[in-house]
Amino acid sequence: MNTQLNTTCIQTDALVIGAGPVGLFQVFQLGLQGIHAHVIDVLSEPGGQCIELYPDKPIFDIPGIPRCTGRELIQLLLQQVAPFKPAFHFNQQVYEVCAQEDGRWLVTTPQQQFLTRTVFIAAGVGAFVAKELKIEGLAAFLGKQFFYRTAPTSVTAGKAVLIAGGDDAAVANAIAIAEDGPNQAQSVTLIHRRDVLQASTTALAQLAELREAGKVNFLAGQLVGIDVEGGHLKSATLQTPDDQSVQLPLDTLLVCMGVGPKLGPVAQWNLAMERKQLTVDTATFATSASGIYAVGDINTYRGKKKLIVCGFHEATLSAFAAASYLNPQASGVLQYTTSSALLQQRLGVLTSPEKSV
Amino acid sequence: MNTQLNTTCIQTDALVIGAGPVGLFQVFQLGLQGIHAHVIDVLSEPGGQCIELYPDKPIFDIPGIPRCTGRELIQLLLQQVAPFKPAFHFNQQVYEVCAQEDGRWLVTTPQQQFLTRTVFIAAGVGAFVAKELKIEGLAAFLGKQFFYRTAPTSVTAGKAVLIAGGDDAAVANAIAIAEDGPNQAQSVTLIHRRDVLQASTTALAQLAELREAGKVNFLAGQLVGIDVEGGHLKSATLQTPDDQSVQLPLDTLLVCMGVGPKLGPVAQWNLAMERKQLTVDTATFATSASGIYAVGDINTYRGKKKLIVCGFHEATLSAFAAASYLNPQASGVLQYTTSSALLQQRLGVLTSPEKSV
Ligand SMILES: Cc1cc2nc3c(=O)[nH]c(=O)nc-3n(C[C@H](O)[C@H](O)[C@H](O)COP(=O)(O)OP(=O)(O)OC[C@H]3O[C@@H](n4cnc5c(N)ncnc54)[C@H](O)[C@@H]3O)c2cc1C
Ligand SMILES: Cc1cc2nc3c(=O)[nH]c(=O)nc-3n(C[C@H](O)[C@H](O)[C@H](O)COP(=O)(O)OP(=O)(O)OC[C@H]3O[C@@H](n4cnc5c(N)ncnc54)[C@H](O)[C@@H]3O)c2cc1C
Repeated sequence: MNTQLNTTCIQTDALVIGAGPVGLFQVFQLGLQGIHAHVIDVLSEPGGQCIELYPDKPIFDIPGIPRCTGRELIQLLLQQVAPFKPAFHFNQQVYEVCAQEDGRWLVTTPQQQFLTRTVFIAAGVGAFVAKELKIEGLAAFLGKQFFYRTAPTSVTAGKAVLIAGGDDAAVANAIAIAEDGPNQAQSVTLIHRRDVLQASTTALAQLAELREAGKVNFLAGQLVGIDVEGGHLKSATLQTPDDQSVQLPLDTLLVCMGVGPKLGPVAQWNLAMERKQLTVDTATFATSASGIYAVGDINTYRGKKKLIVCGFHEATLSAFAAASYLNPQASGVLQYTTSSALLQQRLGVLTSPEKSV
Repeated sequence: MNTQLNTTCIQTDALVIGAGPVGLFQVFQLGLQGIHAHVIDVLSEPGGQCIELYPDKPIFDIPGIPRCTGRELIQLLLQQVAPFKPAFHFNQQVYEVCAQEDGRWLVTTPQQQFLTRTVFIAAGVGAFVAKELKIEGLAAFLGKQFFYRTAPTSVTAGKAVLIAGGDDAAVANAIAIAEDGPNQAQSVTLIHRRDVLQASTTALAQLAELREAGKVNFLAGQLVGIDVEGGHLKSATLQTPDDQSVQLPLDTLLVCMGVGPKLGPVAQWNLAMERKQLTVDTATFATSASGIYAVGDINTYRGKKKLIVCGFHEATLSAFAAASYLNPQASGVLQYTTSSALLQQRLGVLTSPEKSV
């Protein structure tokens, strides 16, 4: 093993980047080919856009499933891949994919390194990451006085906290740290463009009570600058809808402006691209780098449609291609799950081997 | 309308040849595009290979459906296409597809003619037709003294009937015409390679009784020739397993040697082919003829796998291609069933138009 690698380096034949619907079906098709896969996603759970953008809305065009919600589809896919026991690594964003001399790929996240023979980029429209608050000088305080999505109690209890954002997470955070108790903040100020927040009616009712009780202060406007004193974040500048500037003293700044897909590092992996998508060969869904495939919304080819049904096909052909890339001696003969004892054994559904033809 | 056409000619925008899983999903994707389709199959019901070859066996690799039988998959697909009310035409084999001067296609079956702007060939591994008994001179008696699968009572009641074959239909026919009643045959001889018949235990028990009672005579061997006298079929020649020839007098010959897929007329439609499959462009799944698409097992392209999941993708892209072929002005913008009021209206699931975004 390469000496530069850190001790947690995982070696594998196949690594899937993205646990959206297509990444999950990729794992399934690799499993049928007898290839075990690791799967990385920056989110904390599988599902990609289906879970992040429309968990409870119905989809009607998954073949053979007249109607299911985004969440139901992901649950079905998870059930389908279960026999192949994929190794999931959540909360990790892949930021680097580097060619090794032996033809393998070194894939790096902030927490882990992977040394893999094949990579399947199923990164969709990008990694779902917190939408950034862009203020000069602010980035230096990330993880100290400035946080995205959640902040540890140590920086909120008894402190002056500013929360920027108007979604579920912003409201939930405001409620959690404003409520009476040992961890109550000294003051909570919620800042959003306008006084229209996106959260459940229950949460909005709770927030209204806290605002009435003076425990949460709401201000319309947006943060445009910060003040730093002695290496510490002292205050932020709010620009109000009528263009006034207000200084808001703070100990901690928590930003909850939603998550959005960000193509991010994929664009830096030296793979051939076209209008922000990876170009692939439709016979194999291979990218321009050997051993790296791209499937689902992240790829492009003549006729491409960003639909789940198309990603399922792409994941199928890329699994066949990878199987013969990993094992050039393999026969490549098409087998059916309905009739192949080998596939049924891999699926764990072969009770008596002699029953199958 | 062209004067050569017969009066039952049906005019349509889209015609799907084959009601297998891929032909059915083709109807669905056309429906989403706002295109109504007619569907023709030589079988008496939808389902293609799933129903004809493995109705009760489990499939494991339909995405999002961890396990379903061939029959269950077809039922789900039928439920999914129901909102688009396809016009099914069963028991009809398409034998001709002819270009018309106005760019449309004239599609002919023995029963009907169709004048259509687009054709989707989803003919799988071919039309499921009765396996032929090839004996010189026999074809001339088809429909008179010689029948496949079933024969009218008029040619069996009181007659000397030979049944060739060992499947369900052979056994069911033998039982039906040998049993006491007004339609009983004079004699029933069942002929099969060897005395191992494929039928339900109930049917086999009934047959055993009839054989015991001398009402059905079983002979092992195969028919190799016929005798004709005065334009009538007089007898057939049986070759026994020990190579003896036996003359069997007959009035009627019924052949039930199973059904098998037969590529048949597709090969004669002047479309570009490669090893018995239609070559297509993977961006549109168009064949070499404009307005004719090929999807599912019948097509071929670099990387092609004869899997249902691939056919689903092909049917999706061909529907998009056909939509812009039929209406070059159409925007072609991708819409999601989850969020498009137009698609939900077509699916019949839009209860209040203003609810959708
Ligand atoms: C509102 C809406 C409705 C839709 N309705 C339909 C519909 O009805 N039918 C249909 O077919 N399609 C629909 N779609 C599209 C469908 O959701 C996408 O085609 C599908 O999600 C693509 O799947 P995927 O697996 O390729 O990518 P995604 O679902 O986008 O998943 C990609 C995953 O990769 C992760 N990721 C990306 N980069 C990295 C990285 N560097 N490191 C770690 N993780 C990373 C992301 O966090 C994400 O979880 C809809 C989309 C939306 C937004
Ligand atoms: C035993 C077995 C197990 C299988 N298991 C799996 C599996 O686990 N997973 C998987 O993905 N695939 C499996 N398959 C393959 C799968 O069944 C096919 O890929 C699928 O059926 C192809 O669908 P299709 O609609 O293209 O064609 P078909 O299912 O073949 O349907 C074509 C239809 O067209 C009709 N037709 C053809 N020509 C004409 C004509 N001239 N006029 C009128 N009608 C015509 C035929 O009668 C037929 O009904 C299996 C196949 C078999 C045999």
